[in-house]
Amino acid sequence: MARIYTRSGDKGQTSLIYGKRVAKNDARVEAYGTCDEANSMIGLALSFLDGKQFDGKDDFVDVLHRVQTILFHVGAELATPSDKEVAWKLKQEHIEELEKQIDQWDKELPPLKNFILPSGHSASAALHTARTVTRRAERAAVAIEDANPLVQSYINRLSDFLFVAARYVNQQLGGEERNLKADI
Amino acid sequence: MARIYTRSGDKGQTSLIYGKRVAKNDARVEAYGTCDEANSMIGLALSFLDGKQFDGKDDFVDVLHRVQTILFHVGAELATPSDKEVAWKLKQEHIEELEKQIDQWDKELPPLKNFILPSGHSASAALHTARTVTRRAERAAVAIEDANPLVQSYINRLSDFLFVAARYVNQQLGGEERNLKADI
Amino acid sequence: MARIYTRSGDKGQTSLIYGKRVAKNDARVEAYGTCDEANSMIGLALSFLDGKQFDGKDDFVDVLHRVQTILFHVGAELATPSDKEVAWKLKQEHIEELEKQIDQWDKELPPLKNFILPSGHSASAALHTARTVTRRAERAAVAIEDANPLVQSYINRLSDFLFVAARYVNQQLGGEERNLKADI
Ligand code: B12
Ligand code: B12
Ligand code: B12
Ligand SMILES: C[C@H]1O[C@@H](n2cnc3c(N)ncnc32)[C@H](O)[C@@H]1O
Ligand SMILES: C[C@H]1O[C@@H](n2cnc3c(N)ncnc32)[C@H](O)[C@@H]1O
Ligand SMILES: C[C@H]1O[C@@H](n2cnc3c(N)ncnc32)[C@H](O)[C@@H]1O
Ligand SMILES: [Mg+2]
Ligand SMILES: [Mg+2]
Ligand SMILES: [Mg+2]
Repeated sequence: MARIYTRSGDKGQTSLIYGKRVAKNDARVEAYGTCDEANSMIGLALSFLDGKQFDGKDDFVDVLHRVQTILFHVGAELATPSDKEVAWKLKQEHIEELEKQIDQWDKELPPLKNFILPSGHSASAALHTARTVTRRAERAAVAIEDANPLVQSYINRLSDFLFVAARYVNQQLGGEERNLKADI
Repeated sequence: MARIYTRSGDKGQTSLIYGKRVAKNDARVEAYGTCDEANSMIGLALSFLDGKQFDGKDDFVDVLHRVQTILFHVGAELATPSDKEVAWKLKQEHIEELEKQIDQWDKELPPLKNFILPSGHSASAALHTARTVTRRAERAAVAIEDANPLVQSYINRLSDFLFVAARYVNQQLGGEERNLKADI
Repeated sequence: MARIYTRSGDKGQTSLIYGKRVAKNDARVEAYGTCDEANSMIGLALSFLDGKQFDGKDDFVDVLHRVQTILFHVGAELATPSDKEVAWKLKQEHIEELEKQIDQWDKELPPLKNFILPSGHSASAALHTARTVTRRAERAAVAIEDANPLVQSYINRLSDFLFVAARYVNQQLGGEERNLKADI
């Protein structure tokens, strides 16, 4: 088997897809590296559902696995230099898929008129954390020149998706949703 | 109900309070986005206390909910352009409140003469993580021009508060505190 | 006892080892601050092993405690200005130690021909998260002038080490390893 470590990045440079060498703090590397971090945090959130049961749990987990999968493809797109062909391209329909899921969950949730504290079940709090890491990825993506604009939209919508997923999982598992108090 | 997603940030810009448009990687957005991340990590730490008991647990949880609430107000202050009125302003007394709590917990803890490894109970390790994310927020806040200096102080003190909270929760729950070994 | 809070960093500056004052968003502070964050995330991963049993668990935990300890020394090296003597210096053998451990775990694992989703046990998902935070530390270290090149190599190898550790712990605890699906 090929070794996982190649030592080729030991001097602070790395390769994009098609082989172009860039510094490890290049805007593209920052952006797909942060998608990888968001992806890992989603994995942590899912791990807290192990052994828990609620109606529709299997669907919930499937939907999040699908998001993890698409995040890899978003990462591949971010790792492709702008003058090269992207092997798999994000489409408008992937964003619409997120929006439909948001609408569906939202119908089952009490409407919000204020912020909520990240609170309740571990899976919910980890989804809030994944939400904020996704927003960090969104900020990193802004610095990339000539990126596919759909990637920026997808990451934006994904953070709203994770917000609603965090609320939904609390509702299903009886985790407490705490509203932000105005007077302190 | 108003939809949570407005699509208005799909092009990489967003609004501060009062509506000023800025790039999503503007220094202010980086800083309050990182406060949001620290807030979520505190929520994750609290979730690990579910079902655990120790003397003074309710107070401990209340104090951390209060910190989460104040972090939102810190976020609102960071989201207000420097030429505009801040609706709610952080005061010196909020910093003193953290200091008093640090002193109170510290009295119950063995004195430290060295670093400790983030270790022990999940709630403690997550508080250490929240501490380091808070320090990242502090670094991000440095880049803001004309910020309220009390905000910088509050975030600084908050990371010390979270360090002591991490130690305290280990002590209460019997989590192991590991000192850094000098000889390796 | 000396108070943990000194208030001396309230204006956004701090001290390196030997006392040189720098802004808190100086490249060195960013790099060792991110090592501290990776270290905390490793602590969180270890906390999820509490009460779990598998063959070789004690060795696994010892190896990760050793990594946490070395990360502190890496942090001290990053916190030393380039014109000053580093008290403890990272050596080539510390990198080889990681490589040997990677090889040993890898022998016990099914070979990979594709990416895997961060998934399975909480300890595994948290190690994936620690891996991505370590890669963020690696990106931050690139910006430091005249850093010890072994530090860059160590952090690079550490992210591969954490990848294999995440796989290994899933294997030992029966956590599911999910391959990335190509067709979506
Ligand atoms: C972009 C990229 C990433 C991105 C995003 C990936 C994505 N698609 O979004 C991120 C940052 C997530 C990533 C992470 C990692 N990556 Co990477 N990545 C790449 C890169 C630059 C392009 C891969 C790609 O997307 N190709 C485009 C798609 C369309 O191709 P594909 O048909 O899916 O085929 C690819 C995969 O099957 C993969 N693959 C094949 N065999 C193996 C074996 C292993 C162990 C892994 C992890 C992947 C892998 O490589 C194929 C060709 O590119 C390649 C290097 C290169 N220039 O090709 C490295 C590469 C695949 N990565 C590598 C490694 C080691 C990793 C990490 C383990 C690093 C770490 N320590 O965290 C992780 C693993 C993450 C995981 N969960 O599995 C190595 C694999 C070395 C090997 N022989 O085993 C490569 C070859 C880089 C290198 N060092 O030379 N990576
Ligand atoms: C700053 C800000 C944040 C900051 C910090 C907030 C703080 N106070 O520290 C952070 C980064 C944390 C944040 C996060 C989010 N935010 Co915000 N935020 C704002 C912003 C710019 C100002 C809000 C504010 O603090 N006003 C000042 C205080 C004093 O006003 P207030 O009396 O408390 O009233 C505010 C709240 O009640 C809030 N609010 C009212 N209804 C709703 C409904 C929802 C769903 C939410 C979350 C909030 C909310 O908005 C009021 C007016 O500003 C507004 C847009 C704007 N320009 O007004 C968006 C805004 C409130 N946020 C919004 C959203 C969607 C979110 C997130 C869900 C985004 C995400 N995917 O992560 C999260 C939710 C976090 C949570 N835990 O609940 C939307 C709400 C849309 C809607 N109709 O439901 C707004 C309107 C922006 C937009 N898209 O147009 N946000
Ligand atoms: C670099 C550094 C860090 C780095 C990395 C450390 C490393 N070795 O990699 C990081 C970012 C991790 C860090 C974190 C923290 N640090 Co620090 N750190 C330093 C710094 C600049 C150098 C320390 C060092 O490595 N010296 C070199 C080695 C070789 O020396 P050493 O023999 O190990 O001796 C050191 C330690 O024993 C330590 N130490 C001694 N007593 C105490 C007491 C406490 C409470 C702690 C935490 C450490 C500590 O300081 C000694 C002398 O430097 C010093 C300030 C300075 N200029 O000296 C602050 C300093 C030690 N840190 C301090 C603090 C408060 C912290 C944090 C609690 C901050 C926070 N809120 O997160 C955490 C604690 C982390 C933990 N897990 O324990 C304070 C301690 C104040 C006190 N009197 O108790 C100091 C003195 C800075 C200050 N405010 O003036 N730190
Ligand atoms: C809810 C509020 O969060 C801010 N906002 C929008 N996108 C991001 C991001 N990626 N990171 C941090 N903050 C963001 C805007 O100010 C928005 O109104
Ligand atoms: C404990 C040590 O951590 C460093 N330090 C102070 N503030 C921060 C921060 N926000 N992020 C990272 N490191 C910091 C200083 O060097 C201090 O002495
Ligand atoms: C696996 C792939 O991840 C990218 N890569 C290498 N180092 C880092 C890092 N520190 N952060 C993010 N991405 C990185 C390279 O493109 C490599 O090929
Ligand atoms: Mg948005
Ligand atoms: Mg400080
Ligand atoms: Mg590498």
